[in-house]
Amino acid sequence: MGSLLEPGSHRAAGVVDDDALVAAMVRVEEAWLRARGGSGSVEKPVQLDDAEVEAGGNPVLPLVRALRADLGGEVHRGLTSQDVLDTALMLLARDALTRVSADLESLADSLAGLASVHRRSVMAGRTLTQYAVPVTFGLKAAQWLVGVVDAREALEGVVLPVQCGGAAGTLALAPDAPVEAFASELGLVVPVLSWHTRRTPVTRVGDALVETCDALGHIAGDVLTLGRSEVAEVREAAGRGGSSTMPHKQNPVLSVLIRSAALQAPQLGAQLHVCAGQSQDERSPGAWHAEWPAFRRLLELMVTAASQAAELVAGLEVDVDAMRRRAESAADQLLSERGGSGDPASYLGASDALIDAALARWTSRG
Amino acid sequence: MGSLLEPGSHRAAGVVDDDALVAAMVRVEEAWLRARGGSGSVEKPVQLDDAEVEAGGNPVLPLVRALRADLGGEVHRGLTSQDVLDTALMLLARDALTRVSADLESLADSLAGLASVHRRSVMAGRTLTQYAVPVTFGLKAAQWLVGVVDAREALEGVVLPVQCGGAAGTLALAPDAPVEAFASELGLVVPVLSWHTRRTPVTRVGDALVETCDALGHIAGDVLTLGRSEVAEVREAAGRGGSSTMPHKQNPVLSVLIRSAALQAPQLGAQLHVCAGQSQDERSPGAWHAEWPAFRRLLELMVTAASQAAELVAGLEVDVDAMRRRAESAADQLLSERGGSGDPASYLGASDALIDAALARWTSRG
Amino acid sequence: MGSLLEPGSHRAAGVVDDDALVAAMVRVEEAWLRARGGSGSVEKPVQLDDAEVEAGGNPVLPLVRALRADLGGEVHRGLTSQDVLDTALMLLARDALTRVSADLESLADSLAGLASVHRRSVMAGRTLTQYAVPVTFGLKAAQWLVGVVDAREALEGVVLPVQCGGAAGTLALAPDAPVEAFASELGLVVPVLSWHTRRTPVTRVGDALVETCDALGHIAGDVLTLGRSEVAEVREAAGRGGSSTMPHKQNPVLSVLIRSAALQAPQLGAQLHVCAGQSQDERSPGAWHAEWPAFRRLLELMVTAASQAAELVAGLEVDVDAMRRRAESAADQLLSERGGSGDPASYLGASDALIDAALARWTSRG
Amino acid sequence: MGSLLEPGSHRAAGVVDDDALVAAMVRVEEAWLRARGGSGSVEKPVQLDDAEVEAGGNPVLPLVRALRADLGGEVHRGLTSQDVLDTALMLLARDALTRVSADLESLADSLAGLASVHRRSVMAGRTLTQYAVPVTFGLKAAQWLVGVVDAREALEGVVLPVQCGGAAGTLALAPDAPVEAFASELGLVVPVLSWHTRRTPVTRVGDALVETCDALGHIAGDVLTLGRSEVAEVREAAGRGGSSTMPHKQNPVLSVLIRSAALQAPQLGAQLHVCAGQSQDERSPGAWHAEWPAFRRLLELMVTAASQAAELVAGLEVDVDAMRRRAESAADQLLSERGGSGDPASYLGASDALIDAALARWTSRG
Repeated sequence: MGSLLEPGSHRAAGVVDDDALVAAMVRVEEAWLRARGGSGSVEKPVQLDDAEVEAGGNPVLPLVRALRADLGGEVHRGLTSQDVLDTALMLLARDALTRVSADLESLADSLAGLASVHRRSVMAGRTLTQYAVPVTFGLKAAQWLVGVVDAREALEGVVLPVQCGGAAGTLALAPDAPVEAFASELGLVVPVLSWHTRRTPVTRVGDALVETCDALGHIAGDVLTLGRSEVAEVREAAGRGGSSTMPHKQNPVLSVLIRSAALQAPQLGAQLHVCAGQSQDERSPGAWHAEWPAFRRLLELMVTAASQAAELVAGLEVDVDAMRRRAESAADQLLSERGGSGDPASYLGASDALIDAALARWTSRG
Repeated sequence: MGSLLEPGSHRAAGVVDDDALVAAMVRVEEAWLRARGGSGSVEKPVQLDDAEVEAGGNPVLPLVRALRADLGGEVHRGLTSQDVLDTALMLLARDALTRVSADLESLADSLAGLASVHRRSVMAGRTLTQYAVPVTFGLKAAQWLVGVVDAREALEGVVLPVQCGGAAGTLALAPDAPVEAFASELGLVVPVLSWHTRRTPVTRVGDALVETCDALGHIAGDVLTLGRSEVAEVREAAGRGGSSTMPHKQNPVLSVLIRSAALQAPQLGAQLHVCAGQSQDERSPGAWHAEWPAFRRLLELMVTAASQAAELVAGLEVDVDAMRRRAESAADQLLSERGGSGDPASYLGASDALIDAALARWTSRG
Repeated sequence: MGSLLEPGSHRAAGVVDDDALVAAMVRVEEAWLRARGGSGSVEKPVQLDDAEVEAGGNPVLPLVRALRADLGGEVHRGLTSQDVLDTALMLLARDALTRVSADLESLADSLAGLASVHRRSVMAGRTLTQYAVPVTFGLKAAQWLVGVVDAREALEGVVLPVQCGGAAGTLALAPDAPVEAFASELGLVVPVLSWHTRRTPVTRVGDALVETCDALGHIAGDVLTLGRSEVAEVREAAGRGGSSTMPHKQNPVLSVLIRSAALQAPQLGAQLHVCAGQSQDERSPGAWHAEWPAFRRLLELMVTAASQAAELVAGLEVDVDAMRRRAESAADQLLSERGGSGDPASYLGASDALIDAALARWTSRG
Repeated sequence: MGSLLEPGSHRAAGVVDDDALVAAMVRVEEAWLRARGGSGSVEKPVQLDDAEVEAGGNPVLPLVRALRADLGGEVHRGLTSQDVLDTALMLLARDALTRVSADLESLADSLAGLASVHRRSVMAGRTLTQYAVPVTFGLKAAQWLVGVVDAREALEGVVLPVQCGGAAGTLALAPDAPVEAFASELGLVVPVLSWHTRRTPVTRVGDALVETCDALGHIAGDVLTLGRSEVAEVREAAGRGGSSTMPHKQNPVLSVLIRSAALQAPQLGAQLHVCAGQSQDERSPGAWHAEWPAFRRLLELMVTAASQAAELVAGLEVDVDAMRRRAESAADQLLSERGGSGDPASYLGASDALIDAALARWTSRG
């Protein structure tokens, strides 16, 4: 439909669009052919007709028809359309997860830096919107960091299998199918069984990405709050966020867009589970199909949001003086728990040790 | 991202894509200019740069910059970017609702035909997957019909307002803003107040479309069930649904895709409400932005699904002999409620009168 | 399960709990008996066994068994369990909607008062978390008001029908069923057809309640933001919100709980639509059942939240001096659109007229 | 609110209700006291007042007040209410996960049995509702089995930490807090940092349970389809599923209720992620609170559904003759892929080896 309503999605250009999908499907068919001892590669661009895609119910039928010209009649033999499409989507997922993971790596490095540098940058802690006890910005960054590290670990743990079952999962046309070779050609793993109606490979990608988005949304939400005009303790790097009418404006665009992603990802993840729980027979009528747009959109959204988050945090401006001034002026409230007034920096509890623990979690990662 | 994973979405081509959006935004700016006594129209295509769209957080800033060349400095004066984008989305919604409504009209006509023709086509009623008492296919079609008529009425009742509040909803730069003229230019209505953070106009479009999709999903689900190989009481018109490997296959493609839509629409509608409930200040950071992709996708999905449903029902093949044979062979179960056996057609209760009521509901519509 | 994790749900005590449900189901069976010329009423409390409820798949089977002792063998004759349960849920819905509507009435009155009183209470407008142009607190209250008025109108427009179709919707055992008398006994309307698998009556209750919750969440979100320690322009009435450890704390408990409701309602509404779109045969296996907890929880949640919102706004403390001080100190930014500094109160655009329009919308309501 | 609308939820009695919650919170406070070298245990039942729960925004404040009588003023010192409630919910989660896991173990054993026994029970494979190629019921059971094994593994991998951060996560009142001892008392793990606004511990419980429900829904959906009156290849054990009006009926109640769970779980899981992504400050106003009902309901739902699924499969009646008859009568279609007719059992591809692989996956589990 376009990208104008998904600002920043050019960051994900080429990862999950139709061209990437067709290229992935072609790779799958080529890999299958090679795994079975054949050879050949597709030389010219493949164009698929919209009406044929609808008539087939998915893009694989017209694709196979087109490929036969280049690759001969053996192409696709033993596979079913779901084998090709599911495997191709795993390839897209791999590219997307690789991108997201790299951005989380960079993001975590920035966050670790903030946690260290601002280890003693005292600020007001707030709970339920009200001043609570003092914290440090370093501890806040440490919290963000652990969220990102956990999410990255979840992403790294995601297993991406080939789909390979033939018409109804029995490998009927290819009972000695070279599944290992097929998977090896593509760099994917061999599943115990085909997963035409057992959608864990899809939902686990989804869950890991939604968890990632939760962690990014947490950061963006705090940046938006701390960056409010009345608070002004942090600020996005300059260069974006002008207004169509107010010259003074510098809107926190990246945070806004990341928060927007955090509002979207849960519904997309839920979509995958709604489908998974409605599996039926040897291929689901509708529940399989309803996965596709949500899966693709979730990949695109997270490639975009992770890139935006890495950039946001790398450029984040932290006003430690504003933090300290506010904490000091609210000292009576921030210190009411211990029953007195004084320097907010004198009531930071175990913050230092906790920051160390968070940093250790990151530096000792697998 | 593309359309290959949304088979049939070419039916919605041009309704909600980026070109349609830009055209709508241009219309909005032109209408505003004219409402204020200006004139001018945009002559050349407007190209928006992805990075600028992200920098602005939405496509309006780069658009306004581009338009100033054609329309002069007065363009956009008094509006804010949300005024333009929200109003443009209402224009897209209008086009989409018009298309959906027309397809529902056609669909309802077909359903009314089926209800009449099959008034006495006895078949097994099933509840919780088990034979219950006899019904007629006409009554089933009447049930589908009422769902479609209700949905169509809901769509017709949706009110599409202009958005027009200026920077923070006060019309500060244009306190005597010609809102009526603006709305009149565009064929939209004047709202009581701007709705920058009061998103009922958006969620009501969503709710009406999700209700529509429920009605279509109901039809598709029944067609899928009655069309199963073991049941074979209805069948989609031939011409689609081949398999990549099994020559005998005729998959019920339209029903599958409509059912897929019914699995997607609720999450898209929920997305709009999650955003609406998180409104904040005079413009929401993220909650506004997270609406866009869901809103657009829901419009596209429903233009597609309504068109598919109209075609599905128009071509539906009904095997009344198969229905009757099954009902007769299961007569002992179907008639157990009245404690005996006999002709299933003798135990149809008020079916006839109920079909009449449904048909009257349709023919007496407003 | 209990109410401790749903603080404030005692406000909805007796509206939707199991006792209310059983009472409603008994009323339905009594009304059906009377409509058919019988008589009798249930004298002693009905206890339903959990295992029998599960064995029946719903509570109606054991209920009917229990009622036969009091009401004789004619009880329930011609109905199916779904007739009883769906109709009983409509009775619960009516009670809940009546309660919500009354609270919205009171809430709207309070909001109209705030809109009038604070017509000239200037404050900073904020968009995307940053100062925009000046607004008044009256205009903000007017925005909240219109949201509440729209929601109330939506609630008032909800139509609650009896369910009455017999085993498979044909009224087979009671083809001349006295549906009008049945509906009249219960104060519900007569639907065109039974709606066993056409769930618009359920989803429309849901949509109207979710829309209501959006409007309440909008208010609560703004109160939370404006009540932050750093902003302190509004405050909940004293008396709630103490901390388990910090003596100075006064947490904005009602706003927190209403915002919590606004985060929950969309998922509950989506649940109803997921079910509606998966309707199947003459009674849906699972899709019907999955409605129940969400429907009941949504009713309870909204009775609670509407009551909390009415109380929140009635007691809201507004610090107009704090608003004005902030607006004046930020005048350079708030007035940058018109290119100068000065009194923020001099740049309020059409706020006055807009407030009038909102008040008129309320006073002229149907 | 009650359990009548959640048939079967008595299977989860005592796991997550208010009594269980209060008992868990008391255990948490006792453990904290002991970890700090104190002693004492609560002797009498704790009653919490609804209005006080609302006034506190959560049940911990009135609980602490009540406990001080028994445990003295040191109780709770150093903790915040979120520490107590979050930790108590982890205790409830542990009990629930233990129950679910035990039921999955039993369920998997049954499925492994079915996979072995029905290794050669040929039946029609169906894709997109239409006959595809032959499969065996053993392979279908093997597919179900792998879904359950994967889910069980996911559940076993869930880490349940104590929550322990004090007012704002700094352990301000107890910087040398005996977190290890606290965790050890409760059998929970020590997290890197408190997770007041980093909700991975909550969402990971949710994701694992939703994945479990997907696997159960897959089974239930297939049982419903294969158990349809027209198909009649499997049947639930007798003893449930009577009708309020039709004597012949035996509804597949357990499958219906499990499918209902599979339609509900995704929305509950999404609820947790919506909240997680909206985290704010050191404690979220509303996003924390909106987790509770969904989290509790998801635990209850899954304890119920896993128990039902274990019972469903243990008692499942499989009609291998019906399967074979249908496969033979549809042989022309089922064998069209290989271009001929014959015995469906001669075209089962790698089914045998695949069943072995699935069984090995189960017997070699960790």
